[in-house]
Amino acid sequence: MTPLNHSDIITSTVKRLSEAESYKKLCHQHREGEPLPSGEILAKIIVLARSILFPGFFGNSSINSRTLNYHIGVKTEKLFELLTEQILAGLCYECTAEESTYIETHRENAKAISAQFIEKLPTMREILATDVEAAFVSDPAAQSFGEVILCYPAIRAISNYRIAHELHLLGVPLIPRMITELAHSETGIDIHPGAVIGEYFTIDHGTGVVIGATSIIGKNVKLYQGVTLGAKSFPLDADGNPIKGIPRHPIIEDNVIIYANATILGRITLGEGATIGGNIWVTEDVAKGARISQIKAKK
Amino acid sequence: MTPLNHSDIITSTVKRLSEAESYKKLCHQHREGEPLPSGEILAKIIVLARSILFPGFFGNSSINSRTLNYHIGVKTEKLFELLTEQILAGLCYECTAEESTYIETHRENAKAISAQFIEKLPTMREILATDVEAAFVSDPAAQSFGEVILCYPAIRAISNYRIAHELHLLGVPLIPRMITELAHSETGIDIHPGAVIGEYFTIDHGTGVVIGATSIIGKNVKLYQGVTLGAKSFPLDADGNPIKGIPRHPIIEDNVIIYANATILGRITLGEGATIGGNIWVTEDVAKGARISQIKAKK
Amino acid sequence: MTPLNHSDIITSTVKRLSEAESYKKLCHQHREGEPLPSGEILAKIIVLARSILFPGFFGNSSINSRTLNYHIGVKTEKLFELLTEQILAGLCYECTAEESTYIETHRENAKAISAQFIEKLPTMREILATDVEAAFVSDPAAQSFGEVILCYPAIRAISNYRIAHELHLLGVPLIPRMITELAHSETGIDIHPGAVIGEYFTIDHGTGVVIGATSIIGKNVKLYQGVTLGAKSFPLDADGNPIKGIPRHPIIEDNVIIYANATILGRITLGEGATIGGNIWVTEDVAKGARISQIKAKK
Amino acid sequence: MTPLNHSDIITSTVKRLSEAESYKKLCHQHREGEPLPSGEILAKIIVLARSILFPGFFGNSSINSRTLNYHIGVKTEKLFELLTEQILAGLCYECTAEESTYIETHRENAKAISAQFIEKLPTMREILATDVEAAFVSDPAAQSFGEVILCYPAIRAISNYRIAHELHLLGVPLIPRMITELAHSETGIDIHPGAVIGEYFTIDHGTGVVIGATSIIGKNVKLYQGVTLGAKSFPLDADGNPIKGIPRHPIIEDNVIIYANATILGRITLGEGATIGGNIWVTEDVAKGARISQIKAKK
Amino acid sequence: MTPLNHSDIITSTVKRLSEAESYKKLCHQHREGEPLPSGEILAKIIVLARSILFPGFFGNSSINSRTLNYHIGVKTEKLFELLTEQILAGLCYECTAEESTYIETHRENAKAISAQFIEKLPTMREILATDVEAAFVSDPAAQSFGEVILCYPAIRAISNYRIAHELHLLGVPLIPRMITELAHSETGIDIHPGAVIGEYFTIDHGTGVVIGATSIIGKNVKLYQGVTLGAKSFPLDADGNPIKGIPRHPIIEDNVIIYANATILGRITLGEGATIGGNIWVTEDVAKGARISQIKAKK
Amino acid sequence: MTPLNHSDIITSTVKRLSEAESYKKLCHQHREGEPLPSGEILAKIIVLARSILFPGFFGNSSINSRTLNYHIGVKTEKLFELLTEQILAGLCYECTAEESTYIETHRENAKAISAQFIEKLPTMREILATDVEAAFVSDPAAQSFGEVILCYPAIRAISNYRIAHELHLLGVPLIPRMITELAHSETGIDIHPGAVIGEYFTIDHGTGVVIGATSIIGKNVKLYQGVTLGAKSFPLDADGNPIKGIPRHPIIEDNVIIYANATILGRITLGEGATIGGNIWVTEDVAKGARISQIKAKK
Repeated sequence: MTPLNHSDIITSTVKRLSEAESYKKLCHQHREGEPLPSGEILAKIIVLARSILFPGFFGNSSINSRTLNYHIGVKTEKLFELLTEQILAGLCYECTAEESTYIETHRENAKAISAQFIEKLPTMREILATDVEAAFVSDPAAQSFGEVILCYPAIRAISNYRIAHELHLLGVPLIPRMITELAHSETGIDIHPGAVIGEYFTIDHGTGVVIGATSIIGKNVKLYQGVTLGAKSFPLDADGNPIKGIPRHPIIEDNVIIYANATILGRITLGEGATIGGNIWVTEDVAKGARISQIKAKK
Repeated sequence: MTPLNHSDIITSTVKRLSEAESYKKLCHQHREGEPLPSGEILAKIIVLARSILFPGFFGNSSINSRTLNYHIGVKTEKLFELLTEQILAGLCYECTAEESTYIETHRENAKAISAQFIEKLPTMREILATDVEAAFVSDPAAQSFGEVILCYPAIRAISNYRIAHELHLLGVPLIPRMITELAHSETGIDIHPGAVIGEYFTIDHGTGVVIGATSIIGKNVKLYQGVTLGAKSFPLDADGNPIKGIPRHPIIEDNVIIYANATILGRITLGEGATIGGNIWVTEDVAKGARISQIKAKK
Repeated sequence: MTPLNHSDIITSTVKRLSEAESYKKLCHQHREGEPLPSGEILAKIIVLARSILFPGFFGNSSINSRTLNYHIGVKTEKLFELLTEQILAGLCYECTAEESTYIETHRENAKAISAQFIEKLPTMREILATDVEAAFVSDPAAQSFGEVILCYPAIRAISNYRIAHELHLLGVPLIPRMITELAHSETGIDIHPGAVIGEYFTIDHGTGVVIGATSIIGKNVKLYQGVTLGAKSFPLDADGNPIKGIPRHPIIEDNVIIYANATILGRITLGEGATIGGNIWVTEDVAKGARISQIKAKK
Repeated sequence: MTPLNHSDIITSTVKRLSEAESYKKLCHQHREGEPLPSGEILAKIIVLARSILFPGFFGNSSINSRTLNYHIGVKTEKLFELLTEQILAGLCYECTAEESTYIETHRENAKAISAQFIEKLPTMREILATDVEAAFVSDPAAQSFGEVILCYPAIRAISNYRIAHELHLLGVPLIPRMITELAHSETGIDIHPGAVIGEYFTIDHGTGVVIGATSIIGKNVKLYQGVTLGAKSFPLDADGNPIKGIPRHPIIEDNVIIYANATILGRITLGEGATIGGNIWVTEDVAKGARISQIKAKK
Repeated sequence: MTPLNHSDIITSTVKRLSEAESYKKLCHQHREGEPLPSGEILAKIIVLARSILFPGFFGNSSINSRTLNYHIGVKTEKLFELLTEQILAGLCYECTAEESTYIETHRENAKAISAQFIEKLPTMREILATDVEAAFVSDPAAQSFGEVILCYPAIRAISNYRIAHELHLLGVPLIPRMITELAHSETGIDIHPGAVIGEYFTIDHGTGVVIGATSIIGKNVKLYQGVTLGAKSFPLDADGNPIKGIPRHPIIEDNVIIYANATILGRITLGEGATIGGNIWVTEDVAKGARISQIKAKK
Repeated sequence: MTPLNHSDIITSTVKRLSEAESYKKLCHQHREGEPLPSGEILAKIIVLARSILFPGFFGNSSINSRTLNYHIGVKTEKLFELLTEQILAGLCYECTAEESTYIETHRENAKAISAQFIEKLPTMREILATDVEAAFVSDPAAQSFGEVILCYPAIRAISNYRIAHELHLLGVPLIPRMITELAHSETGIDIHPGAVIGEYFTIDHGTGVVIGATSIIGKNVKLYQGVTLGAKSFPLDADGNPIKGIPRHPIIEDNVIIYANATILGRITLGEGATIGGNIWVTEDVAKGARISQIKAKK
């Protein structure tokens, strides 16, 4: 095969790949001024948010109490600016209108949502403080709060979830899921932004944890690696496709512990204080305080 | 210990580390003009390929139908160039010849393989479209095709697999595995490039999924997180080492669903339409349409 | 909501976030010249160490036997310098003294520890060579030592662990855990730096593996993905919190194999040569040479 | 002086520097969505424009005639996008209106101007071709057109001038001057964007050349390093300040050569084909074809 | 010549280049913790200082009056930190002591000097405001203060000079000259940090201007491109080398204008209000209010 | 003008710009594997060469005598590699052959030339040491050799010239000029790589200096800013174009000093020890030891 032929192949393949038939649903055509949300910018937003929520632990600034407010100020303003652009991109992605005036409306909405999110930061910091405490207290290997904040993947996954959940509550499309998927990739912990999770929540090790979109988790719950809170089956619509939006994931009450690789499926309830052993498949309600485990392995 | 001593330690350790005995099999000596394949360049190749396959969703270009062919053209040409260099590096890694003329032969081969790969891109896009559709249809939480393409780790892992599988079929050494490992690191989904996988394939959540080198998967199959398609045991050769290349992973027929953390081992067949429950260990054939699950946990 | 209001919200939120009450335990105040350990620098340290241990496989240098010692020299010196700074940051993080003279003492200690670590590099390379060999020999899909070094996540996770374990033995705080968490994020394999692991150790696929802080693993042990070596329960102190530092993870003797998703909990012993099947929960000692597995799934 | 004092000094200086009195005219307050033009982006715009005008010589693409239009297409689209933003920033900088609706008007204007600029690119390329030819023909040291395009500072300065002049004619504020100052910094050649310069223009070596805002230069003119085309004196207004906008720089007719470090001042005319010797100060008209030079140095 | 030979040449040349004889005075051996000042860091310091002195014009922040103090705060703190390190490097470069305790003394000095510099920033801003005004008022082509700040090379060169001069007054070695050379490279204007220059100073175009180390310049002085304020001859010491530190450059009194390419040499005085024409060589005092110019060129 | 029109304009302009007629001589079509020399890579090569020639002063390494040879080794090997690629690009640019075998010949030549250049480094360092000494001795403002090496633009320009001159002597096309133009842009000093310059050469301040291609400069010569060593007129060929390659620039004998802005033109000789005053135009021979200067300015 001669060099000329390679050039021919490239040229003809480009032509095929540029035909509308070929890309159909796999292509996103941007209207002017309406880029897609960007994974890279969202990653920067998360770093900014973490460095505001846990001052001195993330980002490269050397904080002290006299200069703290300068840093928080600059970072919060930057967060507002970047987040507004991403929310705008999310709003534009969903909308179908073609009139350019709509962009300005979306821009105003994006700013308002972004400001509402900023306003929630102090509350987010309070609840994340309980998550850090829960991780520290329940792990005999943890040496300090700082170690938990710096090293524990659970704190990264839960921070992203709590950020994404606020954006989800504010009605932002697409972006919350992108934010939790960033944590999923970084930690192996997959929490859907729609899940509702109480304070003092912790996950040990965490790889393989899945928490579905309609899960409800109480206070002081601890999960181990590989735990799934999933759906058992989906009611189908007339076309045989799953109906979207129906509650289909478990309710976990306060003070429950679920050990490694347990799979909890369907809209069942694990009662307050229950303990679920590892490697089991649970598809029915579990009573308050109950302890269930796998039957013995055969030797 | 004084600063002088540190310098002594460094100097003497460098000497020990530079002795041929010390590095033996752990060192790769490059012949001139023959670098190793580079993980960083392969990551760029994947970004390029994704941005060609799903125009407008990856990369930072704002695409519209009038300018689409410029972008596809530039990206395809760049992909050809980068891929050729990496394939060449892979070919050189394997070969043992010392004559410099061989490099030119390898270079011509690398170009030819790279062009053949480019030629397959339209077909890859077609089959990836079925994977996106499968993910969208089967997940009640999915809001749009765009959300699936942008957020779902399965799409990233399956894209890398389909790209790597083509290169594997074209006989490229080393690189296909590096490409699927990039996805493994990003998503926790480990698909060997040698596996054969049909259209409309999807994986939910995905962390911990393992699909072995000789697996064969039909159409419209769905896996959940933590599913293993593995080998049960390996026939040993005369030296007690596993014999390489023997079919040893499962055959999954069309329309099978396998739930979270199930482990399927050995050259067994899961018959058409079978449903495998979570957290179980399957080492024998399963009949068409059968449903198997873990026995009840004890309370 | 008008733009003015957004600005008000930002200003008032910055004020709330800057109040000492708000950030309490979540803030790290740096003393002058005492930054926190940096994840980014540690990642560079790992790349440097890998490129010294496996010359020619990592980093972008084209090595040959005549120039090898230049490269090892420059990299080792750079490693000494970066590591010293990070160890210093770790030592400062832990200490509470306020006198500035202490920093100089810490700096001398950091240099000494860093030099002692450098001195261990040749030994680390020797033991890593056995790990590479174990991965190659036991996997029928492995084509070459190079493929194992370049592609296998286990080698990355085990390298980081062996580096972190040396630093742990040298009494460095915080940093060993950060280094193993880097590998955890990259590979899904979570090995605590305190674990003790013998030579010829390998992990296949690896996602979801957890090896706890007080685990002891013999020679020639092989784990599959999703295996947990965890703690069963923690003795509590007078306040109801887990007592830190007690041996609470399994002892795995030589030549043991543990299959995918098995969960081994508590200070139990898996006897020499035992084989543990997948997806089971083991909380009691297993005899030498025993083979245990899950009871059959029901159809 | 103790560390505490440094902190005091910083805090109190920050306060002084943040007072409105202190920064008055030296501060640019941005309205929302109205950044200043950016020197960095303008530098990227110049690189893009050069790579469109001289395909294959700038930028990192390997061009051939089959793929040229892909590259020109992508670059032209990118140029349109970046230039539009910078023109918008320039228009906003000048305007004083506060109504946000004006931004949309400015945006439409910016797009229109940017498109008009793009439309001029083929003509700009034609005239730059004459400049390259003039440099090549008149310099015995020039080996090829390529050497002239790649190495000669005059080509860089003249390209920037011709780009800036078009933007100046299109009424864009601020940006044309920023573009010629980029070339001034790179080459030491300072051409005001308002000057009018004919085809086949060249400058040898170039450092120290100054061409004032109202200069008019004919065809086939050659300048050497250090030549100034400046103003002699400025008519003052009632306040004693120079009146802006009056023609005050020389007219240089076709085929004139001006040697190194000559200083030509005021609205005088150097007649067709005149030759001006080095290191002289000319403040009166020079006749067609005349040759003037410095009187002999004394020994 | 065979590849082997290239390798031989490299190895033997490296050996020669590493011999102490070879590098003697051309090598800087660093003591531990004592790097050289860095041109790159100094360039960052200049960008920081410019963005503090002219808020909103440099750096990428979008400033408004409510958030200005956050930005000034973060930037001033960063400036203090970077400058302290560079001053320390300068102090260490000069000193010859070997005791490590001296480093701590130098560090304290560096901090004190850095804080004293910070304290001068408001005054520097005041005087730079007069320079901007002078440039604006005297140039008919200038459209706005913003254009002057953003585009005029004189402002960049004078800013660097005023910063460097403060550091020179504070006794910092090496760094002041590096800072003015950064501006020299950027603008072609070479002002020695030791020169003394009054307010309302401006330089038009500027390329080729040289202002020597012992020059004294009054208020409201304007220079054009290519003007030299140089030394005429140097008294020699016993060894025939120039004696360092003797006043040897001109004194320029208030309200003097010097036109393009004039060369003013020696410790002469240009009297108040004098006007010096272009391209002339002045080596004797000029009376107050005098106007001197080149004698006519011959035609 | 509507958005649609902008898109039309872009599309049609791209078409015009992609027509062969339009770009003719302004386009460089790359043959495969034959990129143009790259300014960016050449800039890296210069930084590498400077850091080898002046160890510890450039680049970011902290050198000491024990580790010096590691650093010199790595840098020299890298220099060989980068320079070989650039020389190859230069050779390919010139050649017109189409057979691919020629590339391999060029590659071998490029390696040989690159190795010959490396071999000259120790000699280059020796002569540069004399240039540094000349700058230090002759400038009363110079405080140390280090200040000269770090700050003086002359050293940068002369280093680039001496590097470029060696490549010029080795017959490398295009690249020598690119290297001296890099220094021209950085320092305003324009030395043609073909000039021949003796040891102990120095230039004070330097902006605007021009040294033509056929200049010959003896030992211990000092130039000031703005000095031109140029050609007076060019013999024309039959077509009226300048004949290339004829000696046309001055010969400057040992120990000559030329003051600021003097212009020396044509193949004249400035005799040993002559002193040339500033701002004059010299077109005839100057006798040994003569002192010439501008006639007095009129007041």
